[in-house]
Amino acid sequence: MLTWEGTQVLGAANIGNKLENLPFQRIVHKVNTVDAQPSSAAGNALMVIVTGQLLIDDEKNPHHFTQAFQLVAEGQAYFVFNDVFRLNYG
Amino acid sequence: MLTWEGTQVLGAANIGNKLENLPFQRIVHKVNTVDAQPSSAAGNALMVIVTGQLLIDDEKNPHHFTQAFQLVAEGQAYFVFNDVFRLNYG
Repeated sequence: MLTWEGTQVLGAANIGNKLENLPFQRIVHKVNTVDAQPSSAAGNALMVIVTGQLLIDDEKNPHHFTQAFQLVAEGQAYFVFNDVFRLNYG
Repeated sequence: MLTWEGTQVLGAANIGNKLENLPFQRIVHKVNTVDAQPSSAAGNALMVIVTGQLLIDDEKNPHHFTQAFQLVAEGQAYFVFNDVFRLNYG
């Protein structure tokens, strides 16, 4: 599941569609912090929390953002089970 | 597990000790956003991401913060399986 600025989107196809239709063309990320923890007692999942700043299109003032996601192992690969994105306003 | 500003602390007793010894007396939280998603295919866990601002002791300028935690059901109760706290600096 993706939660983008409070909007929940479920399923890979819907999430891909949402991300392709975000209302900007270019974005530059500056990652400030990355924290990760094992998120399952079974040892097959990882929770990652990223904070930083981003510049959208031609804007000069960066926005703070938070993105939290959970990766779950399936065979030799990880897939994104959860994804939450938020801008941090003043 | 608790990750506090990048420091990992494991286990309830250690986490309680860490939280009791944080270097401030008073803190005021203002929550801006709360997002939650089911975080386990088994349906017994919840991932919650909070962003907001906080005032420490007598400071006048709020700090942005991000806190992400995962709650896992055990019987009739939930316990905190993961907890990540970060201040968001400029």
